[in-house]
Amino acid sequence: MISKAVIKQVRALHLKKFREQSGLFLAEGPKIVHELLRSKGWKVSDLFALPSWTPPPGPALPNINIVSEKELEQLSGLQHPNKVLAIVEIPKSLHQISNIPSEGLYLVLDQIQDPGNLGTIIRIADWFGISGLFCSADTVDCFNSKVVQASMGSIFRIPVHYGSLPDLLVKNSEGPKLPVFGTHLNGDNIFQANLSDKGLIIMGNEGRGVNPLLKPFINKSLLIPSKSICGDGADSLNVAIATGIVCAEFFSRTTGNK
Amino acid sequence: MISKAVIKQVRALHLKKFREQSGLFLAEGPKIVHELLRSKGWKVSDLFALPSWTPPPGPALPNINIVSEKELEQLSGLQHPNKVLAIVEIPKSLHQISNIPSEGLYLVLDQIQDPGNLGTIIRIADWFGISGLFCSADTVDCFNSKVVQASMGSIFRIPVHYGSLPDLLVKNSEGPKLPVFGTHLNGDNIFQANLSDKGLIIMGNEGRGVNPLLKPFINKSLLIPSKSICGDGADSLNVAIATGIVCAEFFSRTTGNK
Repeated sequence: MISKAVIKQVRALHLKKFREQSGLFLAEGPKIVHELLRSKGWKVSDLFALPSWTPPPGPALPNINIVSEKELEQLSGLQHPNKVLAIVEIPKSLHQISNIPSEGLYLVLDQIQDPGNLGTIIRIADWFGISGLFCSADTVDCFNSKVVQASMGSIFRIPVHYGSLPDLLVKNSEGPKLPVFGTHLNGDNIFQANLSDKGLIIMGNEGRGVNPLLKPFINKSLLIPSKSICGDGADSLNVAIATGIVCAEFFSRTTGNK
Repeated sequence: MISKAVIKQVRALHLKKFREQSGLFLAEGPKIVHELLRSKGWKVSDLFALPSWTPPPGPALPNINIVSEKELEQLSGLQHPNKVLAIVEIPKSLHQISNIPSEGLYLVLDQIQDPGNLGTIIRIADWFGISGLFCSADTVDCFNSKVVQASMGSIFRIPVHYGSLPDLLVKNSEGPKLPVFGTHLNGDNIFQANLSDKGLIIMGNEGRGVNPLLKPFINKSLLIPSKSICGDGADSLNVAIATGIVCAEFFSRTTGNK
């Protein structure tokens, strides 16, 4: 049986404040926990599992605390808790923008608030081999349980950095000079524009588009064209959908897939 | 002041059973309600609004019931109710698969359960000029408040039909013979395959892929390639993301955008 104190500590990890204090976050469900256990560079501090959970084959696991369904419900943030819950250490190196890369393709996310959107974007990045994400400090925390969940485990493979985006872009302009692409602007049709296999791709906040502070750094503005004639169609795309289309286009044209 | 009976009737519309009984559904917030009011073929039965809501210019509105913030909270399904809520009549013609089209590009959705995914797919369809959606009977109801919300008003422009997908595909094979595309299968790389400006595009259920009953009807299987080598990346994409990428590719290649 697990104590009330443990339940309280685990549940506190649903809040960013306590994740930052403890340096821990939650990963839930067999799919996500299996992805965690097969990924490098992550340290599992605790595992809570129903007797029916089968650990994947592989390296030795940390101690497994066997819990009842009722106890798992008390620990979980999910509506339907699913067999296993892991407490994971947040790697400190992931959390700050330090070195500016000199190659690779990166997403730059400005004020993405919705955890489902961020998690889905991490999953897209993993699918198309994006090298990493740079997020503004006010983007939702990537260790928020809903982000981890929506990433379907891709959070354990894609580096996510937080910090000042203007600083990042200044450093890039002084140093590696990766090309900077902006989207959600009046730009060139992305399906016809020249794209490259390295660069920083700025995805704007859904409501407000790209932050004016970032615009001066953009070398090439890209637009996803729509069928809309005279404003009779949708006037925007969800930011995760736009990211999916942009990443697919960069991927297909820079890897010989088109 | 609005009566308890009215509050009860409105709140009941959050449930499919009562939407079907009454033939009514809810649309909430200024953005969605403005899209409703400028769309043809929709009859607004009632409007509830805060005194601060400004109706858009245009045709005369039905009676507006001015309500307090507290009353709007009681009516609304949203966490943060937003100024206005409309009760809308469900057009009967939209709800069943009847005629099979002989041209146009349609999405065929099999057992999409998540309302956010369906709403987002409707918004994508609107952006790229998709002619309409055919959904299996067990796909989430398109008049579910969360679907309406996630569609950002595109629900008022994109026809959504429900019914037996095998029946639809049998009728198509006997009649108009639109080409049938399937996704989420071991298919041809979508970025290299021949695509057409008319057809039925089957998007599989996220968990289970395309229903085996539908597979025999597929003329061309399409695959969204990934960077993953030896299974070390994401093993799937969210169904709305996959739909966005597929629609973008059909759109860009069949409208001279590429």
